Amino acid sequence: MNELRKDCLLDRWVIIAENRGKRPVDFIQKQCEAKEGVCAFCPGNEHLTPKEILSIKGPHGWTVRGFENMYPATSLEFPQAFGRHEVIVEMNQHNKNLQDLPVGAIREVIDMYCSRIDDISKIDGIAYVLIFKNHGEEAGTSIPHEHSQLIALQRIPTLVEEELTAYKKYFNKTERCIFCDIITMEMESDRKIFENDGFACFAPFASRFPFESWLLPKRHVASITQLTNDEKNSLADGLKTILGKLDKLLKNPPYNYYLHIAPSGEDFHFHIEICPRVTKLAGFELGSGIIINTMPPEKAASELKSLTL
Amino acid sequence: MNELRKDCLLDRWVIIAENRGKRPVDFIQKQCEAKEGVCAFCPGNEHLTPKEILSIKGPHGWTVRGFENMYPATSLEFPQAFGRHEVIVEMNQHNKNLQDLPVGAIREVIDMYCSRIDDISKIDGIAYVLIFKNHGEEAGTSIPHEHSQLIALQRIPTLVEEELTAYKKYFNKTERCIFCDIITMEMESDRKIFENDGFACFAPFASRFPFESWLLPKRHVASITQLTNDEKNSLADGLKTILGKLDKLLKNPPYNYYLHIAPSGEDFHFHIEICPRVTKLAGFELGSGIIINTMPPEKAASELKSLTL
Repeated sequence: MNELRKDCLLDRWVIIAENRGKRPVDFIQKQCEAKEGVCAFCPGNEHLTPKEILSIKGPHGWTVRGFENMYPATSLEFPQAFGRHEVIVEMNQHNKNLQDLPVGAIREVIDMYCSRIDDISKIDGIAYVLIFKNHGEEAGTSIPHEHSQLIALQRIPTLVEEELTAYKKYFNKTERCIFCDIITMEMESDRKIFENDGFACFAPFASRFPFESWLLPKRHVASITQLTNDEKNSLADGLKTILGKLDKLLKNPPYNYYLHIAPSGEDFHFHIEICPRVTKLAGFELGSGIIINTMPPEKAASELKSLTL
Repeated sequence: MNELRKDCLLDRWVIIAENRGKRPVDFIQKQCEAKEGVCAFCPGNEHLTPKEILSIKGPHGWTVRGFENMYPATSLEFPQAFGRHEVIVEMNQHNKNLQDLPVGAIREVIDMYCSRIDDISKIDGIAYVLIFKNHGEEAGTSIPHEHSQLIALQRIPTLVEEELTAYKKYFNKTERCIFCDIITMEMESDRKIFENDGFACFAPFASRFPFESWLLPKRHVASITQLTNDEKNSLADGLKTILGKLDKLLKNPPYNYYLHIAPSGEDFHFHIEICPRVTKLAGFELGSGIIINTMPPEKAASELKSLTL
């Protein structure tokens, strides 16, 4: 039976519409055709990208590489849209996905995220650094070579501000972290997908997207930059696991993920929200701000949990 | 130069990113392939839809036809997702678009909207009736035969609530309607697209989508149901004009529109927001709540304004 649900944190509502629901196989998208032509993100074509800002080097050249976005949305040069907009190429191979890499290589991507956040947070006037990823055309990328992006802004993004406000409100009332409490609850619920040493993964109660999955450190940590070495390895393992499960179940689905970290000096509970993009946001969603999700998170979690990689 | 803009009403931000901007022709989508098979929305196939609720009859059968959605998101039968979910087929022809109809036929669609809003608003427990349209696959429909939908809810949708709050705040401060003031401003600005006797059309200052267009009655009217006959004709003419312009410029683009009316008993300024869906919402938008729009509304309005139909 359908159900209107309110998000645990935000004043955000979804309609879980199981009667419109489908099997996981019904959410499989047709595969994107491989694009012809030269890939600017491949080794040997570094001259086609803006100047390298930072890279991680292996025995055979760079393995992760960062540079400014060729068409930045924000820039230190834009007085009306002040910020930074960078690309992080996640690997030197063109035809692999992030979850195909060994945990150690995914860990390098995490190290790159941390370095760029640390560096850019120091710039005067930067209030927030948002790292996100678009995988697949339906998720907004036209470049198949795996990469993340980073947009830094002079203000805290609306959604992060809303999460922070909800976080503080709960803390003032209970002296507890709402995310810590949610993790405790979800690791016992039918929305649990998996956990490893450092991280917990579940389908949120008011999932907006079919197979939406959140990845949070079990320890209360404000930002990805404050994880221990072991926790960063757990995160790499956790990303490989959840992206691998989504890949296996939905056959390389388009997805977005983004990191929600604390703004400098604030307390918060760092997490990654992974949003498969196998349905469209349509007129009802745009006009109401309420999302209809045809895959109940309990069913999504059960499918993802039982998959072996 | 790029610009971070705040919406006139809401705490909603967009980055107008002209440096990523393109010509209108770059926003043209590849045409959807015509679907094979039987169309449940065509005359003769009425038995394939749920029972007719209301239709408008012409000399050769129905011209506009309403019935419950086959897979309703909300229903009077769902205690946890109480409401109604209906389909309004806008014409008896399969291969035409709304803007191809004469003004009188579009007026019939408007009359149907009004009838259904009036009827459903009377149901106990219904707080709001949202009418919206999905045109084209990228806008979330799989059925090409032109139709609108209606979802009624037991609560006022988040976005409407936010608009109402902003409306009241402005009214309490100024004793004026913010929409009336915006219309006055925009009919003198470079974001004006056109006006007719009863309606004004412009690209909003903080447009979220390339070629986003808002259509508002010039007179202060809370709901579509309170328009005069002449104003309803103006709305039909206005819809034909703006949809015709978008069609001509962007070659039958996917789009959504939705009607924002006052909840019963509240004051408000009715309007329609038309959102072409020629770009994707990606990880930055999902993670930040801020939308990057690569088509400045001033440029969009100038293109749409100068088009003759």
